[in-house]
Amino acid sequence: MDRDKILLTPGPLTTTLRTKLAMLRDWGSWDSDFNAVTAKVRASLLDIIHGHGSHVVVPLQGSGTFSVEAAVATVVPRDGHILVLDNGAYCKRAARLSQMMGRRCTQVNFADDQPVSAQVLQQQLKADPTITHVVMIHCETGAGVLNPLQAVADVCKAHGKSLIVDAMSSFAALPIDARTMQFDALIAASGKCLEGVPGMGFVFIRKEILEVCAGQSQSLAMDLYDQYVYMEKTGQWRFTPPTHVVVALAEAIAQFEAEGGQPARLLRYELNCRTLLEGMSRLGFKPFLDSSVQAPIIVTFHAPSHRHYDFKAFYNAARARGFILYPGKLTQIETFRVGCIGAIGPAEMEQAVHAVELALRDLGLDSADPAI
Amino acid sequence: MDRDKILLTPGPLTTTLRTKLAMLRDWGSWDSDFNAVTAKVRASLLDIIHGHGSHVVVPLQGSGTFSVEAAVATVVPRDGHILVLDNGAYCKRAARLSQMMGRRCTQVNFADDQPVSAQVLQQQLKADPTITHVVMIHCETGAGVLNPLQAVADVCKAHGKSLIVDAMSSFAALPIDARTMQFDALIAASGKCLEGVPGMGFVFIRKEILEVCAGQSQSLAMDLYDQYVYMEKTGQWRFTPPTHVVVALAEAIAQFEAEGGQPARLLRYELNCRTLLEGMSRLGFKPFLDSSVQAPIIVTFHAPSHRHYDFKAFYNAARARGFILYPGKLTQIETFRVGCIGAIGPAEMEQAVHAVELALRDLGLDSADPAI
Repeated sequence: MDRDKILLTPGPLTTTLRTKLAMLRDWGSWDSDFNAVTAKVRASLLDIIHGHGSHVVVPLQGSGTFSVEAAVATVVPRDGHILVLDNGAYCKRAARLSQMMGRRCTQVNFADDQPVSAQVLQQQLKADPTITHVVMIHCETGAGVLNPLQAVADVCKAHGKSLIVDAMSSFAALPIDARTMQFDALIAASGKCLEGVPGMGFVFIRKEILEVCAGQSQSLAMDLYDQYVYMEKTGQWRFTPPTHVVVALAEAIAQFEAEGGQPARLLRYELNCRTLLEGMSRLGFKPFLDSSVQAPIIVTFHAPSHRHYDFKAFYNAARARGFILYPGKLTQIETFRVGCIGAIGPAEMEQAVHAVELALRDLGLDSADPAI
Repeated sequence: MDRDKILLTPGPLTTTLRTKLAMLRDWGSWDSDFNAVTAKVRASLLDIIHGHGSHVVVPLQGSGTFSVEAAVATVVPRDGHILVLDNGAYCKRAARLSQMMGRRCTQVNFADDQPVSAQVLQQQLKADPTITHVVMIHCETGAGVLNPLQAVADVCKAHGKSLIVDAMSSFAALPIDARTMQFDALIAASGKCLEGVPGMGFVFIRKEILEVCAGQSQSLAMDLYDQYVYMEKTGQWRFTPPTHVVVALAEAIAQFEAEGGQPARLLRYELNCRTLLEGMSRLGFKPFLDSSVQAPIIVTFHAPSHRHYDFKAFYNAARARGFILYPGKLTQIETFRVGCIGAIGPAEMEQAVHAVELALRDLGLDSADPAI
């Protein structure tokens, strides 16, 4: 039957019909009605991190990676020195885009099944005083690890270093409080835990550093300072905004607030994650991460070692039953990922586990155990 | 009444309900169904310029300006020298983004009510042999001037110079034939004459220069070569695509093809433009451009000189009647603009003229003549 499949991915994810219905209108990007939507979205985003006193928020067209690049380009001076706390694919991407734009960049590597370490960061900062900026990923969706944001922020603050946080897949689900945690930039996007559709990101920038950001970006499109100044002056986006994506995000945020905001969303995702882990465990699957470092956002499972296992066939069998899984992103071991986020609850996760069970049967697998 | 207003702007513009309805589904960005949509869109775009033999097309997240910047970053070597044929605001923007990314850039200025000149270009190329790339805007929506693309392309080809064309607001409406015209990059976007929703652009790149483009971009997000290679290899976008925008574009293209493609779209826009010009002329309005250089995309009108005229009040009065006008972009004289593009026909243009007439009456203007 022609039904929407449930997306068990880290975004684009399953959104509510109400969110999608908001896209059935066309909006003039210069019109006051649309400016009001933009203003409302920006105010709501600041609410989520309790950031009205300390931060501004600058939305940007494009995918989340565009906003990460824009944050680095805008916040880091051309002669800055970035330290990337690297425990996965998205950290490596942040380092690569920093290097490409000509910023000096050092990576400290951690295992991809381990969180980054605030202690190691402290040693690094002591060892190399030329470091000016630290980049970290809050939830590294490469494997799904939760990184210690508060501890890293505390070390950065103590050493007077600027912190840039990629909170793409954690924002609005995991707690982030600008009143108790200092960061110069924090990045997320429309199509993640706010459950909007993809097409725009946004960057929180600390007010105190705003004026220093003028003229730092070598990219016009990614100059968040310029975008900010124009938006404050006119209420409009500098260049054509993805109007339908913006109004869908406004609608998604309204539902987020009605649900009970970040605490309620976290509770639902934790329940989703627990339902998934318990169900998959019954089928013999083993999660890649220890439960102590597992964020309730996306779970990496070891691929079954059974000789009949093939990811593509497994994916297609689950897909035929209405569930879209996600490939693994680890280079050394064969894995696959299952997202816990989106407009879904434990009922959908139970159905997903059931679909996986039937998919295993289709492939002729009597066990999903990676050790057999 | 709560009805959608007609957008008489250069985009975002009025789209059909069918195009918007395509956004009522969620798509996995890794899934084969979505990859098929991307492939179909890319093939259709190449059809429009008859470019399958000569060009590839690379879609990019973000607004059209992101794609212009990406085209320059990808196609122009770091030691290249760009000549911008400048007759308006969008030309100046192209020059600015080129300079910001560190490319050497020279501007030749033309009046904003005149097309750029292929003859002047020829003289410039003879006078300065260090120029490697020429940037032009096909239809400069700052005022609405149609620039002589074929003549400029011929001069560039004769002198062995690379041509980059911003065809944002002309593509799919005005004829562009890659078989008879040589260009290295040509840029447009989803939310313009294809009548999709805004949120992505795309760049045609000449196959012959593709390999030279590797490693030229200083921006990861805007590296069209990287985006191209990844897309060819996997069928997927490098970073999260604006899935709903992409499927809406696919639906918009299907309607474009059913309407009769570019010739049919041009005919409708010409009729829209004529209806507008005739109607506004009856009200006393004077177009800023001579009809010989007016593209049927967007028309700039002189503001009435009547002392009761005020753009904001005029805009709001027309808006109250369901039509969204567009402000002028000229710095010297007061003007406003009216778009002729989008999912509208002469009936809507007649209604728009009528709304303008009533708006004038609201403001107590007995004449719209700019000379009175």
